Amino acid sequence: MERVFRHFQEDLDLLKARLLEMGGLAEERVREAIHGLMDREPAAIEAVLTGDEPINDLHMEVDDRCFKLLALHQPMAADLRVIVAAVKINTDLERVGDLAVNIAEAGKRYLQHPPVKPLIDIPRLADVAQRMLRDSLDAFVRRDQALAESVLAADDILDSLKTEIFRELLTFMLQTPGTIEPSLDLILISRHLERIGDHATNVAEDVIFILSARDVRHHQSDSPRRGGSPAE
Amino acid sequence: MERVFRHFQEDLDLLKARLLEMGGLAEERVREAIHGLMDREPAAIEAVLTGDEPINDLHMEVDDRCFKLLALHQPMAADLRVIVAAVKINTDLERVGDLAVNIAEAGKRYLQHPPVKPLIDIPRLADVAQRMLRDSLDAFVRRDQALAESVLAADDILDSLKTEIFRELLTFMLQTPGTIEPSLDLILISRHLERIGDHATNVAEDVIFILSARDVRHHQSDSPRRGGSPAE
Repeated sequence: MERVFRHFQEDLDLLKARLLEMGGLAEERVREAIHGLMDREPAAIEAVLTGDEPINDLHMEVDDRCFKLLALHQPMAADLRVIVAAVKINTDLERVGDLAVNIAEAGKRYLQHPPVKPLIDIPRLADVAQRMLRDSLDAFVRRDQALAESVLAADDILDSLKTEIFRELLTFMLQTPGTIEPSLDLILISRHLERIGDHATNVAEDVIFILSARDVRHHQSDSPRRGGSPAE
Repeated sequence: MERVFRHFQEDLDLLKARLLEMGGLAEERVREAIHGLMDREPAAIEAVLTGDEPINDLHMEVDDRCFKLLALHQPMAADLRVIVAAVKINTDLERVGDLAVNIAEAGKRYLQHPPVKPLIDIPRLADVAQRMLRDSLDAFVRRDQALAESVLAADDILDSLKTEIFRELLTFMLQTPGTIEPSLDLILISRHLERIGDHATNVAEDVIFILSARDVRHHQSDSPRRGGSPAE
């Protein structure tokens, strides 16, 4: 029994390591897409557009590890919650990888036009979203509830930054119709970044659920995000 | 043992029934949001903006049912796949409910302007997305692999409709800058609808995985959706 238990812990640790690796890959791809946009480097954009195989492979591997852990060890209570959370976190990270591709697609179109304006808010939004993602995964691995709760709080910052960007770009479009196409791409990019923050929030909610067996997802007092106005 | 087994089957059937119920609710909310937009009925829009409690309650209930099934029955192989798929499908359906709210938010803004154009493509896109959602859930409950595969195929239709809408609205914005704001909202609505189709595709992929233990998610030959250009 102890031998089986030790294998279980090793497998669980390996699962967490793989999820961290996947989070690192996803974050790197987002960073690369934003770098391509900011520094007008088509090569960086292309690298994101064509390089989603490693993260997709990890996605399937992690899912498979979760299944094997569930099937072979039939874990109870706390461990069960960790593994089911890992299945969900895996899905969130794969979507972040897809969103990096979406950012690169919009970025590629954006680079076909002269710059609309100095990009200041977009990299700020990207920084907040990536920080949320990193913190949510660290909170998962380190079982750090306070860190997970800080991720939920950061979602409001993300939301107000996105609204600010939207208003500013809408003003540009209305004043200078020649900027409509590139402005539209920046709006789309800001929405993709906001969705990365949403995925980080999902991960943070899963961490809180694991640690407290408390479901914070639809209680407004705990988590203002999911009220009448869900993040887009 | 047989008694436990019978309870397991009953619980599993109840879980499926709840997921179907949740799918029905999500679909109804999307339909209501599109109805409010098409028929310019603010009351329908408001109903969507304020009515997400039932689906959120179901979301937590289904998650809880999945946990109990895993913890109490420690199912193996095929049943395990069904329950883990149910956890994922539950997340997808909850997101569809959120997207209905996002559509209602953009619809509310849209109704503050005179109509940009007769809305023909948006309801078509909505029909395709809702049909995909319904089919993917039917495929889950009836274990119908052919139906699940038809959902994957429909994703291409959705994608080309969305691209068409985007191009047409961009033309409107460039020709008549007065339509920028409402056109932008229609673009956002079309993206929300496309994402509903993406969630249906996720469900269909889970169904194929359950039935064949085959992971079709990242193989381009099986599923063209996840290549270099993931749907937004």
